[in-house]
Amino acid sequence: MIYDISMLISEDMQVYKNKENKKPKIDLVLKFDKDNCNESSINMNLHTGTHIDAPFHMINNGDTLESIPIDNLVRDCKVLDLTFVDDRITKSDLEGNDISKDDFILLKTRNSFEENFNYDFVYLEKSGAEYLSQKGISGIGIDALGIERNQKNHETHKILFNNKIIIIEGLRLKKIEKGKYFMYALPLKIENVDGSPARVVLKEFDK
Amino acid sequence: MIYDISMLISEDMQVYKNKENKKPKIDLVLKFDKDNCNESSINMNLHTGTHIDAPFHMINNGDTLESIPIDNLVRDCKVLDLTFVDDRITKSDLEGNDISKDDFILLKTRNSFEENFNYDFVYLEKSGAEYLSQKGISGIGIDALGIERNQKNHETHKILFNNKIIIIEGLRLKKIEKGKYFMYALPLKIENVDGSPARVVLKEFDK
Repeated sequence: MIYDISMLISEDMQVYKNKENKKPKIDLVLKFDKDNCNESSINMNLHTGTHIDAPFHMINNGDTLESIPIDNLVRDCKVLDLTFVDDRITKSDLEGNDISKDDFILLKTRNSFEENFNYDFVYLEKSGAEYLSQKGISGIGIDALGIERNQKNHETHKILFNNKIIIIEGLRLKKIEKGKYFMYALPLKIENVDGSPARVVLKEFDK
Repeated sequence: MIYDISMLISEDMQVYKNKENKKPKIDLVLKFDKDNCNESSINMNLHTGTHIDAPFHMINNGDTLESIPIDNLVRDCKVLDLTFVDDRITKSDLEGNDISKDDFILLKTRNSFEENFNYDFVYLEKSGAEYLSQKGISGIGIDALGIERNQKNHETHKILFNNKIIIIEGLRLKKIEKGKYFMYALPLKIENVDGSPARVVLKEFDK
């Protein structure tokens, strides 16, 4: 069983803070009647929908997308149930979960049940990011278009990036129960950029 | 061991017939010094680099990308060695290979060794497409930006689409030996379009 946990990309999809210039534009540039085939182009922000951030997104002179080995994106992961959190995920919300060194953690929150952009989306607060860094995790995913909001200087992003933790944003985890899965999180292979939209799927973990 | 068989997307990558309007454009729309983060957008044809075609690309009123179930793109596949072919892959080039019903076949040709667009790329000729359709395969991949050239009315595309065969174009198979693999071919999840760039990876097949 394959679970597709990617957001659908369309012109009217949710985008960060509902900014018009972050909405993807899709144009049919060749049309069957005239050109004998249909062919479209897309103009989109690289942080559209389900996507992977590269450190360069938040750290000047940081590493770009190709610094993330594909083997680190094709691996087991753990989905945590944080749907009880109202506002932000802190250290105390995470304590008590089974989190180990080198884990790739996906945070399932109420965000997965919301189709429109919510300015008050649940995010990973600085203390949560510090806790996960101390645990030595390898990657983190969240079901919001950002892993943080309302924190000066993007502290959560920076703590994670400085600890070589991969960040996936914009997941859709509504139908996924907490537990262990095998994940394929595949961004486009774009040279020298700050991130890329990705298709992310989970498989039941073979025990 | 994971093999990445995707083409690198960049502004100077090879594009079909070297057409300027098919080259992707990448812009840094937010800059760290001014905006406190780096953020880029990309404008690209949906048939850029390694990509999956939907029937709508070549058949008017054909099905769009969401008609291809993700389970049909996450499965075993067979890489055939056709590097001996000079010009086009015909029925006789394919005969003698181990091809069975429901196979997903990837054609490795001399194209995989060429970084620039070659107007004389090796393609799947109509007789080869008919042969594969009769065999009842489920999908086909090739290491050229098109699965055909110089055939009136795109006969290869149409034979394949009319037989519900999934088409992947733009693979990079230089380092891949012929044989059986497990494939993850993940396009972006874009609504109602004629195709999408994809990240495609192979795993050694567990026997």
